[in-house]
Amino acid sequence: MVILGVDPGVASVGYGVIEYKNFKFRPLEYGTFHTGKEFALQLRLLQIGEFLDELIGRWKPDCMSVEELFFNTNVKTAIMVGHGRGAILLSGAKAGLPIYEYTPLQIKQSVVGYGRADKNQVQQMVKVLLNLKEIPRPDDTADGLAVAICHAHASNSRLPYQM
Amino acid sequence: MVILGVDPGVASVGYGVIEYKNFKFRPLEYGTFHTGKEFALQLRLLQIGEFLDELIGRWKPDCMSVEELFFNTNVKTAIMVGHGRGAILLSGAKAGLPIYEYTPLQIKQSVVGYGRADKNQVQQMVKVLLNLKEIPRPDDTADGLAVAICHAHASNSRLPYQM
Repeated sequence: MVILGVDPGVASVGYGVIEYKNFKFRPLEYGTFHTGKEFALQLRLLQIGEFLDELIGRWKPDCMSVEELFFNTNVKTAIMVGHGRGAILLSGAKAGLPIYEYTPLQIKQSVVGYGRADKNQVQQMVKVLLNLKEIPRPDDTADGLAVAICHAHASNSRLPYQM
Repeated sequence: MVILGVDPGVASVGYGVIEYKNFKFRPLEYGTFHTGKEFALQLRLLQIGEFLDELIGRWKPDCMSVEELFFNTNVKTAIMVGHGRGAILLSGAKAGLPIYEYTPLQIKQSVVGYGRADKNQVQQMVKVLLNLKEIPRPDDTADGLAVAICHAHASNSRLPYQM
């Protein structure tokens, strides 16, 4: 199974395409896509959409796994990230991908085995599970990979994430 | 000048396509596009995107005018409407339309001449300005038309909306 994990945003979108087979992971492509704030919001959304369309075309993932938004962030940020997340979900929907959503708590729980794990612990586990030489940078890249791993684990078992 | 006005949302998207020429308005098409909550969010965004792509293809507006989101709404609602607004801006960007954004205050100021006007006053003015027999229903339709009218007025003068 090939999973595209996405950490949503407008200024930066972390992503990780991983293969998960026989309980083993293989990273295929990962990084962070940036858009410049000198561009109008609609152009940034268009750039994100086109980037993801290409990424999906290149790897033909079986599904998309996307981080859910915090509800305790400030409203202005929430609206902004909501715009980006809309463009991201739209790319997945156009390609006919099933889309799964996980909260930060579920992701930590799944990747580290502990819902209150800190950022560094998540990143270390991403590195170990994917057999990478270094922690993927920037943080958004690690977050994109983490949500992909989370879905791989969830697809393994009916617990703790019912699908 | 043909203007597409949009009142953003996910469950319902109000829209109005109007022609503005020699200080006169002519309504071309207006209504509210609904998506069912029985569909996953990404499918609802896809439906909205496809609907707007078609609407833009049909009328080839010169620009899009979109209502800005309240920042005083609750975060969950803000995120949801943000998703819808992302899909809407993306449709405009794909078609290469300039996109203008107006706050509810600017819209009321422009349509009624008074920023604290109530919903009913706005709807009455929309009806009068567009020479309609009845107030357009539901409210979202009137809101979509109002933001289109607001841009027409703004494009007339450099005041009060600098562009």
